[in-house]
Amino acid sequence: MTTSDTRSMEQVLSDAQAAARAMAVAAPEERAGWLRGAAAALDATVDELVAIATRESRLPEQRLRGEVARTSGQMRLFADALRDGTPLELIIDTSDAEAVPVPRPDLRRMLLAVGPVLVYAAGNFPFAFSVGGGDTASAWAAGCPVVVKAHPGHPETSTRTGEILAAALCDAGAPRGALGVITGFEAGIEALKDNRVKAAAFTGSVAGGLALHEVASTRDEPIPFYGELGSINPVLVTEAAVRARGAAIAAGFVASYTLGVGQFCTKPGLLFLPSDHGLDDALMAARDVAAAPMLYSSIHDAFGSGVERFSKVPGVEVLVGGVEAGEQDSPGVRPTLLRTSARNLLDQADTLLEECFGPLALVVEYDDASEFEDAMSRVGGSLTATVHAEEDDHSWIQTLLVGVRERVGRIVWNGWPTGVAVAGAMHHGGPFPATVGSLHTSVGVTAVRRFLRPICYQDTPDALLPAELQDANPLELERRVNGQLTRDPVA
Amino acid sequence: MTTSDTRSMEQVLSDAQAAARAMAVAAPEERAGWLRGAAAALDATVDELVAIATRESRLPEQRLRGEVARTSGQMRLFADALRDGTPLELIIDTSDAEAVPVPRPDLRRMLLAVGPVLVYAAGNFPFAFSVGGGDTASAWAAGCPVVVKAHPGHPETSTRTGEILAAALCDAGAPRGALGVITGFEAGIEALKDNRVKAAAFTGSVAGGLALHEVASTRDEPIPFYGELGSINPVLVTEAAVRARGAAIAAGFVASYTLGVGQFCTKPGLLFLPSDHGLDDALMAARDVAAAPMLYSSIHDAFGSGVERFSKVPGVEVLVGGVEAGEQDSPGVRPTLLRTSARNLLDQADTLLEECFGPLALVVEYDDASEFEDAMSRVGGSLTATVHAEEDDHSWIQTLLVGVRERVGRIVWNGWPTGVAVAGAMHHGGPFPATVGSLHTSVGVTAVRRFLRPICYQDTPDALLPAELQDANPLELERRVNGQLTRDPVA
Repeated sequence: MTTSDTRSMEQVLSDAQAAARAMAVAAPEERAGWLRGAAAALDATVDELVAIATRESRLPEQRLRGEVARTSGQMRLFADALRDGTPLELIIDTSDAEAVPVPRPDLRRMLLAVGPVLVYAAGNFPFAFSVGGGDTASAWAAGCPVVVKAHPGHPETSTRTGEILAAALCDAGAPRGALGVITGFEAGIEALKDNRVKAAAFTGSVAGGLALHEVASTRDEPIPFYGELGSINPVLVTEAAVRARGAAIAAGFVASYTLGVGQFCTKPGLLFLPSDHGLDDALMAARDVAAAPMLYSSIHDAFGSGVERFSKVPGVEVLVGGVEAGEQDSPGVRPTLLRTSARNLLDQADTLLEECFGPLALVVEYDDASEFEDAMSRVGGSLTATVHAEEDDHSWIQTLLVGVRERVGRIVWNGWPTGVAVAGAMHHGGPFPATVGSLHTSVGVTAVRRFLRPICYQDTPDALLPAELQDANPLELERRVNGQLTRDPVA
Repeated sequence: MTTSDTRSMEQVLSDAQAAARAMAVAAPEERAGWLRGAAAALDATVDELVAIATRESRLPEQRLRGEVARTSGQMRLFADALRDGTPLELIIDTSDAEAVPVPRPDLRRMLLAVGPVLVYAAGNFPFAFSVGGGDTASAWAAGCPVVVKAHPGHPETSTRTGEILAAALCDAGAPRGALGVITGFEAGIEALKDNRVKAAAFTGSVAGGLALHEVASTRDEPIPFYGELGSINPVLVTEAAVRARGAAIAAGFVASYTLGVGQFCTKPGLLFLPSDHGLDDALMAARDVAAAPMLYSSIHDAFGSGVERFSKVPGVEVLVGGVEAGEQDSPGVRPTLLRTSARNLLDQADTLLEECFGPLALVVEYDDASEFEDAMSRVGGSLTATVHAEEDDHSWIQTLLVGVRERVGRIVWNGWPTGVAVAGAMHHGGPFPATVGSLHTSVGVTAVRRFLRPICYQDTPDALLPAELQDANPLELERRVNGQLTRDPVA
């Protein structure tokens, strides 16, 4: 019931559409039940799934086990969030005959599923951003059927995950059509043009994301397209921080930019250090990172080209790795660490401020804070910016942060951007090109908002309202009634 | 300081950009102060403004006075909403070393102004959807500078409103650049392409809105474009409702579709009546509605063409007005009321399911509920659907509403869709073509959300956080702390 091997794309889309109404009217707790069922099925089949994914993705088993746990964990987080109805943003304004300039009718607003959602799975997360990943889980939480365009990098993982989840959803009472999986580049574009698809979510390259965004925006009925594209994730280290814990920062940076062979969207790509940092030896630790394979051969090749392109830029010095090292270690890759000045970064911004997917980073040496600020103003929108600083820095950093936050979605203090916590307050998004659709996140509870639109009932009899909006509040949900948040019935 | 007569568009955009940071960091109560100052200035100059607008827009003075009151009223509503910080969606998750699968850092999320917003003023609301209208007020509430592309239908009203509001904002402490007004078709497109503009809002035609949406979506840095385009606003009347109060419903319908010379986006364009309704005489009251001028001559001409186009459709009968009546009454127009069957509506959907701006409506006679449902499934997305029914209808209407709500943004019960209350629970939006961007509203407190994006602070020292997110909650805002909504400090 789940894959394009057994069902045509037409069937997948038509099943999704057929499921849309039943999923939209399902009570929050019912949706939570689907998510819990799906989570349990993932956990129960982790050995089988990880075995397939290890073979297909070349990622280490331990990492993949962690990813399955994260994937089922975020399904449960969405389920928990549904319990009190928060994602539905229930607002009730009872009638007010005295309102000026005109009397106010009884108005009751809730958020409603937009309909079938198309999810483009990512190559670098076979579970957490793939068939049952965050986009899928948040769409289910919203009450939307999901059509996943599987990533070609892990086809069998996708198929098997789809089978397991579809069966689990069915057991949990979700309608057939809650999940469909399609494959193929052309199918992914055709599905996006299909009128039955009402929103799409994508994690991948800037070029691919922009092309799909244009399709979604210019079809007869434009639909929202949420794309997480490219992010360079700058890191600033102050002089005081270098003095206090320079070696630890260098080690932390090396660990972060090489984590998962540098294949995370939050990989820190720029390390701004004061010119006299003296951390060369510590940074050389990147040499000791073991060679490891990248996700698949096209990624491997693209990384090789990236290393070559960055290394050849005038004014860029190779600290670790570089072209020759890359060639030696094929089929695995070793980290590359480059160095340049803040001034040269701006002169060579066309190359050096592009994202390079994989374990490559650039140490950028600055003479003073204004050099960092100039560079930061040129860095494209990023998912994150990281600051390592000490208490003495607070006053000037406070001013600086006001500019930094205009360029990013998350500020990380004295830590590292990789390892994105799945939580209510998490934001995984940012100004373009980090995302198209910077109002939204693809990680955390608020990711549900992407797949919901408001509906308002005016003066509608209580018996005809959805339970979410009825006077008695039978589902005991959190609602804003005449301005006050409450679970009480409407008086 | 406000118009393209005295400042070039370049100056307007550069002032807006220069104002962006100061406006974004302004505390909610500070923004509320700007809004209250602007509202007071509008109210204080209502005589002058209405005199200009009456001349330019051909709209009646009383209507325009009401519109100014609504415009200042909604500024105050946004100001009130800012008092407790609700639009900022503050979420704090304190660190949790025990979290699985990984420990959770301290995460604090708030919404942040996106930057300069371009607002396209509408022709049919010289105040409420123009220079100081809902889009502008919600952008200010978000902390965004606004560049208004004035509507050519009321140029002097726009200029004078801009001057009054700019001065009031300045007096209230807002930065210069909080409001700029530009004019001209080309300028409106050039501004949308400008990299300094970070979001746009539009109220107008489907064709115009789609063209601008494409510009916004395909520029180098795509930006959100919120367009309220076309809506046909169907009305269903059940047999029981006809029996109980048919004459009153007919009178109410005539009043609603002819209100403001039919120039409201919520004008009900389709009246579904049971075939044996017997309300012909009551509907003929539309004959007695006085001729009135439309907003300007191009609108007048387009209405004449629309009347002709609709009247000539096979199977359509003229009840009131029609082509000849339209010609007789120039320069004013009189209402037209047409009649057809539900089956013919579907056969002639290409013409009859288009919106016709002005006082034209179509009575659609249905034989049974399934005919209405078939027709409703073909009606384009609408801002509203209205139902007139009695208690005996509840069981079948309940089922029917599930399908109706998929097509609209607001369901009006035993009332009329014109006269949109400005309130927290209002939703003024709907599936395409009612809007591009059906996740958002252009009326009501939640309209602010269009111009805000999330930012998350991870493990950031309290002193460096914005006041909104500091432990002590110095601004006494509503925040969700570890899942619970509270105004208390973080423990």
